[in-house]
Amino acid sequence: MSETEKFLRQAIDLARQNVRNGGRPFGAVVVKDGTVIATGVNETAATADPIAHAELMAVRAASSELRSPTLDGCIVYASGHPCPMCFAAMALAGVEAVFYAHSNEDGEPYGLSTASLYGELAKPAAERSLKMHHVRLEGGDDLYAMWLQKRSF
Amino acid sequence: MSETEKFLRQAIDLARQNVRNGGRPFGAVVVKDGTVIATGVNETAATADPIAHAELMAVRAASSELRSPTLDGCIVYASGHPCPMCFAAMALAGVEAVFYAHSNEDGEPYGLSTASLYGELAKPAAERSLKMHHVRLEGGDDLYAMWLQKRSF
Repeated sequence: MSETEKFLRQAIDLARQNVRNGGRPFGAVVVKDGTVIATGVNETAATADPIAHAELMAVRAASSELRSPTLDGCIVYASGHPCPMCFAAMALAGVEAVFYAHSNEDGEPYGLSTASLYGELAKPAAERSLKMHHVRLEGGDDLYAMWLQKRSF
Repeated sequence: MSETEKFLRQAIDLARQNVRNGGRPFGAVVVKDGTVIATGVNETAATADPIAHAELMAVRAASSELRSPTLDGCIVYASGHPCPMCFAAMALAGVEAVFYAHSNEDGEPYGLSTASLYGELAKPAAERSLKMHHVRLEGGDDLYAMWLQKRSF
């Protein structure tokens, strides 16, 4: 069994165990230098936390384990196609690559695809369902300059 | 002062306070029916957690407050342009609309823009820097069917 298959099967086993525990069918494993440093499962059902996705939980756990916000050299193995939130989280953390076993197409019949949210993000902001409105306040604001100055000391 | 301005100024005040506490310059406020139900600040500096963005923390806090993973009817006011992770989190949670005070253009000179990550997500998956590889394992897998069956009982 290849290393890729081994870690993907581990992610799927986590997802299966999560389903047995009443959770959603998603698990993820973070690997560095061939060693599992953190795992995560989808905890949205148990916690009513909409962002408790397996990959996000695994990224948080890996950062905590490494005591670093950057996951350079880390590979994420996920049981299912990561959603855009998790993709962005992994990109922000500097994850090196992602492997997943079940595609959005596999998930579509079960309502487990996030392809439509990828579609939203591919659109210009003004055409997305969730609108983000930029409101420039009067009087200016030196918030970012304040932060930079504080960092310089 | 309009309600939009009031809540945006509250988000900016949270960001300023976070900077004074050694954090990054981001704050967010979740409002439902004209009332603030949760707030968040960027905690990445304090926690080494790469996903501890203000909007994400605010969404988690609001879900916890409402004891619901859905934030229907909620509006998020953010001091800065939400990143794609936070956008997707807010979309997943069903947030109604987002207002922000500082744009990615404002943040660009300070290294505080996430425009490039939006650019990544607008590309087809194969052209993104962070590659996601689909590996279909042999032997099939009934993970999603298992979940559906468990839900039916």
